Amino acid sequence: MEGGALWTLCSPALLVDADKVKRNAQRMKDRCLELGVQLRPHMKTHKTLEGADIMTGGSRRCIVVSTLAEACFYGDRGFDDILYAYSLPFDKVERCAALSERLDLFQVLVDHPEALERLTKRRLRDGRRWHVWLKLDCSNGRAGVLPSDPGAVKLAQAIAEAEGVELTGVYAHCGNTYNCKGVEQIQAVAQETTESTLQFMEKLKAVGITCKSSIGSTPSCSHPVKDMSRLSEVHPGNYVFYDVQQSLIGSCSLEDVAVRVLTRVIGHCPHRNQLLVDCGWCGLSLDGAGKLRTGYAVIEGHPDLKLVSMTQEHGRVEPVSGALDFSSYPLGTPLMLIPYHACATAMMHPVYHVHSAGRLLGQWTPTRGW
Amino acid sequence: MEGGALWTLCSPALLVDADKVKRNAQRMKDRCLELGVQLRPHMKTHKTLEGADIMTGGSRRCIVVSTLAEACFYGDRGFDDILYAYSLPFDKVERCAALSERLDLFQVLVDHPEALERLTKRRLRDGRRWHVWLKLDCSNGRAGVLPSDPGAVKLAQAIAEAEGVELTGVYAHCGNTYNCKGVEQIQAVAQETTESTLQFMEKLKAVGITCKSSIGSTPSCSHPVKDMSRLSEVHPGNYVFYDVQQSLIGSCSLEDVAVRVLTRVIGHCPHRNQLLVDCGWCGLSLDGAGKLRTGYAVIEGHPDLKLVSMTQEHGRVEPVSGALDFSSYPLGTPLMLIPYHACATAMMHPVYHVHSAGRLLGQWTPTRGW
Repeated sequence: MEGGALWTLCSPALLVDADKVKRNAQRMKDRCLELGVQLRPHMKTHKTLEGADIMTGGSRRCIVVSTLAEACFYGDRGFDDILYAYSLPFDKVERCAALSERLDLFQVLVDHPEALERLTKRRLRDGRRWHVWLKLDCSNGRAGVLPSDPGAVKLAQAIAEAEGVELTGVYAHCGNTYNCKGVEQIQAVAQETTESTLQFMEKLKAVGITCKSSIGSTPSCSHPVKDMSRLSEVHPGNYVFYDVQQSLIGSCSLEDVAVRVLTRVIGHCPHRNQLLVDCGWCGLSLDGAGKLRTGYAVIEGHPDLKLVSMTQEHGRVEPVSGALDFSSYPLGTPLMLIPYHACATAMMHPVYHVHSAGRLLGQWTPTRGW
Repeated sequence: MEGGALWTLCSPALLVDADKVKRNAQRMKDRCLELGVQLRPHMKTHKTLEGADIMTGGSRRCIVVSTLAEACFYGDRGFDDILYAYSLPFDKVERCAALSERLDLFQVLVDHPEALERLTKRRLRDGRRWHVWLKLDCSNGRAGVLPSDPGAVKLAQAIAEAEGVELTGVYAHCGNTYNCKGVEQIQAVAQETTESTLQFMEKLKAVGITCKSSIGSTPSCSHPVKDMSRLSEVHPGNYVFYDVQQSLIGSCSLEDVAVRVLTRVIGHCPHRNQLLVDCGWCGLSLDGAGKLRTGYAVIEGHPDLKLVSMTQEHGRVEPVSGALDFSSYPLGTPLMLIPYHACATAMMHPVYHVHSAGRLLGQWTPTRGW
């Protein structure tokens, strides 16, 4: 298929625009360079070797992963300085230990004293130490200890003092930027998360602890606030692809979105004023239901079409309003779906078809599972 | 892991109860035997070799698939008499031709004169003929030609008369049984679909055409009506696993559901009255949003817990009402999620962990893609 036109692909197929990926990655690098913070890109959106090489500029160092499957995948391919940014799951301590003993710098996340206990119970070989980030919940509302909780500083101290363990940093995910609309709101959350994190770093300093700090999310890192330069690192991930959701939040323009799902018209249903397309929820995530005027995706170049529903391998498309002109959509017509959420849609595809200037360059194969 | 306890698995993990799978498969076989119709099980729910062997009783003959990836997967493993039950996609005619020339009996679905044209243009080698089922839409509202459409009989005639093509049968999917509640409603739809199909067969007979007939869906085949015995075949699929949705429709009891997603408690958030679990929308489908009192799944043995939201690798669990007793759910506590829709959740897992009487038997590896 290499060198072929996109239309030679069978559908549904996940398409990745290599030029946009590179541009998105470069912009984030430039932004971080300008801020003076270390970029530690998150791999969860694409989970591929090629995407990671672009995001790290080929250094194969300093990444974040969401699963141990990703950690092993990258570790096996020469990557190091890997942060497994997931509150230490007790069923995976032994696998984390193996990675810590195999890599130069494998790092875990802790947000509970019990997790620290698990680490101290499993001493690493050869005098190695566990590299631990303390996870803070700065109004994100998912994992992490609240910075206002007196237990937070105590836990940091316990990590710093525990034998065989090192407090590497403090980590906060500002996922609450996903509720924002526009740069102003994004920057307000970025500022709030940065301040909470920096205030917490001051509290640590007051008890004699210094370590790194990192916050992240694609919206906040796409529109960073000045104070973020006082952090050690940032860790966005989705920006490599972006998606409709990010364009609505205000992280990017729709032009920046690097992924599409290629689908084709496979049915005409004039009695229902509908087209059928060959993409269902096996090829496009259900995430974003009810959030778009155009249904489960934006159909590129057809702003008046709506992907109203999906079953396993079928999508139903109808006009946002009015009667459909079926002659404009002969059977076999290719359509490009811009996904609402790139992370959720990419994870459904066993392979990504990468292109540049309308020509296929090859395939990227993501890792899967946990 | 073989012989190990379920709790030795890392989570999230898709668990398949082999005993329930075999029982569900046997019941469907018995039902079809009693009715006197040929069972042609659909593979789309599990997409594995082992599941197919159980559903076909080891014959490796007479199956339905939803993708060409499945058709190739099964064709490569000695299966034959495969029906690709998907309105012929024009981008895949050549791949269908290759399968038709390789297998004894590869069958395709047609619901439009243009699709027939594509087939007649691509003559098969060695005097082979395309085996074609005509797809009817008997009030299902997805693909297929309406039986009331005068074009339907004409298309059947055109298929029957075209050179290099054979009209094998008439195929209808009664997916509208998914809107039913209870056996009575299911059987009303089953009766309506059966009657529409049989009436259409009469119309064909009147113009000198005889061929097979097939209807299917897990609800209708779990509670068949007598008249279904006048059909040649039925083609349900989900029944091998069943799920919460099927139990609500009335196809099965919750006891019959053969799949679970194993997850674990990874966080306590007393300030939000929530637990965090290690299953997000990478491990459990978003399908069924808003349909259950208990959120995105039923949590086995904990009817008062609700999976209220998911992100990529996190689930938020809270009580349906009242305050959560965190001491009942220590960090690391395993929980079993019964999926709303087994097809949609199974497709997210690169491997299924199969067990019997609480002991792991091994893994099934599904095929993916298109």
